[in-house]
Amino acid sequence: MRIPVHIGIIPDGNRRWAEGKGLPKEDGYDRGLRPGLELFKLCQEIGIKELTYYGFTMDNTKRPAVQTTAFRKACVGAVEMLCNEDASLLVLGNTSSPLFPKELESYTSRRNFGKASTKVNFLVNYGWHWDLSKTPENVSTNKNNLIQSLYSSDISRIDLIIRWGGRRRLSGFLPVQSVYSDFYVINDYWPDFKAEHLYEALEWYDKQDVTLGG
Amino acid sequence: MRIPVHIGIIPDGNRRWAEGKGLPKEDGYDRGLRPGLELFKLCQEIGIKELTYYGFTMDNTKRPAVQTTAFRKACVGAVEMLCNEDASLLVLGNTSSPLFPKELESYTSRRNFGKASTKVNFLVNYGWHWDLSKTPENVSTNKNNLIQSLYSSDISRIDLIIRWGGRRRLSGFLPVQSVYSDFYVINDYWPDFKAEHLYEALEWYDKQDVTLGG
Repeated sequence: MRIPVHIGIIPDGNRRWAEGKGLPKEDGYDRGLRPGLELFKLCQEIGIKELTYYGFTMDNTKRPAVQTTAFRKACVGAVEMLCNEDASLLVLGNTSSPLFPKELESYTSRRNFGKASTKVNFLVNYGWHWDLSKTPENVSTNKNNLIQSLYSSDISRIDLIIRWGGRRRLSGFLPVQSVYSDFYVINDYWPDFKAEHLYEALEWYDKQDVTLGG
Repeated sequence: MRIPVHIGIIPDGNRRWAEGKGLPKEDGYDRGLRPGLELFKLCQEIGIKELTYYGFTMDNTKRPAVQTTAFRKACVGAVEMLCNEDASLLVLGNTSSPLFPKELESYTSRRNFGKASTKVNFLVNYGWHWDLSKTPENVSTNKNNLIQSLYSSDISRIDLIIRWGGRRRLSGFLPVQSVYSDFYVINDYWPDFKAEHLYEALEWYDKQDVTLGG
């Protein structure tokens, strides 16, 4: 089986999940922690080398305070959980805003935990325009140089993006690393994550051809 | 019904279509001309304001010469056909390569034909890295400024991308204009285009919510 080197995770549907259970929308975020850890462990077993989670974006911070507080807290919890694993951990996002959680500042340079066998990137207060706006004056048309000119330069090209919650869009997720990614959508909401979702996505990915645009 | 302002078209599957008919792969490209014109006319009737066609990319030019010759010819034919319509036409791509068709050089500044009621962009020898590499030294984090710093600055944000041929990926299609696009995949190959494909995509799009990442 052909296994992706790098998987991007868009864990959408937390608010819709909460609404469906008759709970306040913001209660959904906390329920995304268990799935995040479970998915990490499955990917590690399978031998996925790199994982990138879409935590929250600068766009998301326009939501009501009760929601921003809840998803910021969930991201801090998720990162702290991953510190107990064999992970090489990077938190990436715009730290110049007060909405970037202070607790995560020490992770904005990559840190190794345990055997550090899986690279994990966590996008926190990330913005596609912010990411691209670092581009310096002398950019050649070389693809590698272009990635090096991004704030997200330490995040590699993504082979497979899996999005939960049924929407078929990238919502600003790493536009440069995603140019050739295969895109798989799960209709279930992220808090309802189960191992079968990942296996289903990997089986589908195995049947795609890799052309890298060629 | 909520109609997208700008639709991106990824007309994939020409080679697989030809193979399925027992024809040489390169024979598929010419069969993409009729669908292109038919789709344009349907979109005009419906009131779509802007259409962007993915002609060919710098990545694609690595293919055998018999294929590059065929798809370059098909792009010239498609653009010449659109000159007979009410179209405001722009051809965008890297003109510094000999693979950019000479016949299309006069379209690299937008030209109006007839009532010019529909904006049509045609990507020819386009490359995502080429597009992004124009970025000048002083880029602010303002989203509009960022689009203005691209070679594709005259192409607006895309609401809906429709891809024929079953693949679920962008293949380098306008990474910045696609950040919030809804993405609809048709399994049929592009030469088998029929009006129902477009209607199906529009019906699906109508049911999506627009959040622009928020």
